[in-house]
Amino acid sequence: MDFFFYPSSVAVFGSFKEGAIAHEILRNIVEGGFEGRIVPVNPKGGTVEVAGRRFEIREKLEEPVDTAIIAVPAKIVPDLIDEIGPLIKGAVVISAGFSEVGNEELERELVERARKHGVRLIGPNCAGIFGVHGKFFGSFEVRVKPGGLALISQSGAFGGAALAMGNDEGVGFSAFVSYGNASDLNESDFLEYFADDPNTRAIALYIEGVKDGRRFLMALRYATSRKPVIVLKAGKSASGAKAAASHTGSLAGSYEIYRAAFRQAGAIEVEEMEEVFDAAKAFEMYKKAGKRVAVITNSGGPGVLATDKLERLGLEIARLSDETVERLKSFLPPQCSVKNPIDLIADADYERYKKTIEITCGDENVDSLLVICVPPIFIPSEEIARAVIDAECDKPVIVNFMAGELVRDGIELLEKSGIKNFPTPERAARALFWLSRR
Amino acid sequence: MDFFFYPSSVAVFGSFKEGAIAHEILRNIVEGGFEGRIVPVNPKGGTVEVAGRRFEIREKLEEPVDTAIIAVPAKIVPDLIDEIGPLIKGAVVISAGFSEVGNEELERELVERARKHGVRLIGPNCAGIFGVHGKFFGSFEVRVKPGGLALISQSGAFGGAALAMGNDEGVGFSAFVSYGNASDLNESDFLEYFADDPNTRAIALYIEGVKDGRRFLMALRYATSRKPVIVLKAGKSASGAKAAASHTGSLAGSYEIYRAAFRQAGAIEVEEMEEVFDAAKAFEMYKKAGKRVAVITNSGGPGVLATDKLERLGLEIARLSDETVERLKSFLPPQCSVKNPIDLIADADYERYKKTIEITCGDENVDSLLVICVPPIFIPSEEIARAVIDAECDKPVIVNFMAGELVRDGIELLEKSGIKNFPTPERAARALFWLSRR
Repeated sequence: MDFFFYPSSVAVFGSFKEGAIAHEILRNIVEGGFEGRIVPVNPKGGTVEVAGRRFEIREKLEEPVDTAIIAVPAKIVPDLIDEIGPLIKGAVVISAGFSEVGNEELERELVERARKHGVRLIGPNCAGIFGVHGKFFGSFEVRVKPGGLALISQSGAFGGAALAMGNDEGVGFSAFVSYGNASDLNESDFLEYFADDPNTRAIALYIEGVKDGRRFLMALRYATSRKPVIVLKAGKSASGAKAAASHTGSLAGSYEIYRAAFRQAGAIEVEEMEEVFDAAKAFEMYKKAGKRVAVITNSGGPGVLATDKLERLGLEIARLSDETVERLKSFLPPQCSVKNPIDLIADADYERYKKTIEITCGDENVDSLLVICVPPIFIPSEEIARAVIDAECDKPVIVNFMAGELVRDGIELLEKSGIKNFPTPERAARALFWLSRR
Repeated sequence: MDFFFYPSSVAVFGSFKEGAIAHEILRNIVEGGFEGRIVPVNPKGGTVEVAGRRFEIREKLEEPVDTAIIAVPAKIVPDLIDEIGPLIKGAVVISAGFSEVGNEELERELVERARKHGVRLIGPNCAGIFGVHGKFFGSFEVRVKPGGLALISQSGAFGGAALAMGNDEGVGFSAFVSYGNASDLNESDFLEYFADDPNTRAIALYIEGVKDGRRFLMALRYATSRKPVIVLKAGKSASGAKAAASHTGSLAGSYEIYRAAFRQAGAIEVEEMEEVFDAAKAFEMYKKAGKRVAVITNSGGPGVLATDKLERLGLEIARLSDETVERLKSFLPPQCSVKNPIDLIADADYERYKKTIEITCGDENVDSLLVICVPPIFIPSEEIARAVIDAECDKPVIVNFMAGELVRDGIELLEKSGIKNFPTPERAARALFWLSRR
């Protein structure tokens, strides 16, 4: 499927009037810096200008391209596929008006035409795809920062919202695919593909229901054997399942069966949208972590909140070795607490944080660290950020700098060094929980 | 206690060098627009300029003021209180170095001197206070937007972080108090005070432990009888309780006892820091809500997620009356779902949202509405925001516009009209859950 996510050439079909779907997709592809050939196609011809580049609109496609993105009225899509089938490897059909509105016949026809030419299909009724490391943004959704998360979404709108929110939350993406009606390729195919994609460090999957449970379980197992798969299942409650049935036509089936399948396959099931981002950020940074956590903080309260959450999630507050305690005592002011959670108190500076992280990291009773920083009063938050960056530690370090504008500079500095911030002590604790599930 | 939260004059004691605590507090008071008299005091005299205003620094306080804010070395605080006692009604002692570091004797002396003069004390070892509607920002913490939440925090650092984060999350504040060692006034006093404060619509309380359980339960009962009290209890787990003991000296006691007390008193206990903001926002807008929720969305997936969460929290997906269904059918496109969750589909515009909200709101089977909007493709999000604002509805409406920059304009417009946004479907569902607990 590289021709979808790392294409060397693409054609876009639809209207190129300002604001039309095809125009927006073309704009995204150009602004996203796609380096391959881009061919806009519309029978009316003409030209279109996006992001300062002017394109001839071809009346028909006459040269081979890897992938076609199609946003033309549903009823003409099958004939278009027939026409361009010999020239393309894959087609992403954005157009709606197929099985999701009862038009099963038209969808069947679309699939038959594609099969005839050996063309693979994504969609119809989808929001498109991103291959972020191929600089290919083949969707009207907001572009995202490059990173390790491949997002597979049965719901286009959920996917779009998750991309935008992920951007704000500091998630980096390797790919995005909204697969709509899944007429040909479905969640199982994408799971298998991203399992082997070298740019993808974790996969997030939003599903309401799957059609082929056995195939799905196999694909999920394969993927989880290679990298973490975060699953958000919608349609868990009775009313939710009914709503899903009318939304994606998913016969959601009993949630218990899905839950057992996720567990059996070793997937990371999250409960809420926000948790997708937290888990994704954790797995972009680390493969896994043990259960024994050391908490380091410059403020008691947030340290206590983190401790509560860690224990509640079944993690352990690491028992520091006598040697660690002695070494900490040797340089920390007497008001500091050298029991875990380690409280460096309000005036903790670069040295205090860095040394404490390094000593604690060296303790064989410690599997991972949770480092908290509330806005220091006398020094800029960047200084603490630098301590976290500079500290030598080969174990997972999850960071919670809070809050708001007061630590923005520190957080930016962390992110430049590939360290993602978690906004509350509890969300940081939950990140460690997911790491412990691998 | 109005002299603390609505003072007409204040004195600040400490160093007025750039960056010193007293200087930061003075800056906050001036920049926050305090309209009363402000008297900086330091035996060295001199002048200080903050925010373009120049102040004489008095060598001693010689005129009566409502409140003194004290950030001088701990050991001289008792004598200072003795000296200024006849001139002040209350003192906020920021200075640390009392019982929290084992200096019980000094703290006892402080309290005795204050009692002698009938002076009430907040602190010592605290982060100060805000009386937001009195434009009085008597703390070095970040200033906040005016609103309905009074935040009472045993931990100064937690309080500071919560103020900064609350700003970002769209919470409005009536007051803030960090009460530190609670040598005189404690959480119970503030609960009672804010219960009667006309600018406070909801109270949020962060505690690790209380000293007088019986008094606390009475104060909590009194407060909850007047307005919602949101409680975040830290030190719930075994390790958390130990950490709390070394942090605020709280003998946290069994969490089960606290939990029973919260429940018995009718407080809203939240589990995480983030939930404080969500609950606060809900209660800033509404007093309470029934259990039967109508979900209105322009995208199936998020509607399903909201539905799942509502059911999981024990709320009900309202069964719309036949009349409501007929009225919705009469104007909605046939692809829309008129079952709850009501799916207005991607091209939903102002009219579709407004009419649907109004019709659904009129249904006697519906207690409250959850309105979701993912970035509309063909119209700006402000248009949907306007529909929510304009719709006539006398029941609680909780809004989830997502995501990120794509709906920022819509969210701003909502907030200008006093409608607070919840960033995910699940957090919006949880807001309704808390409203249903009153």
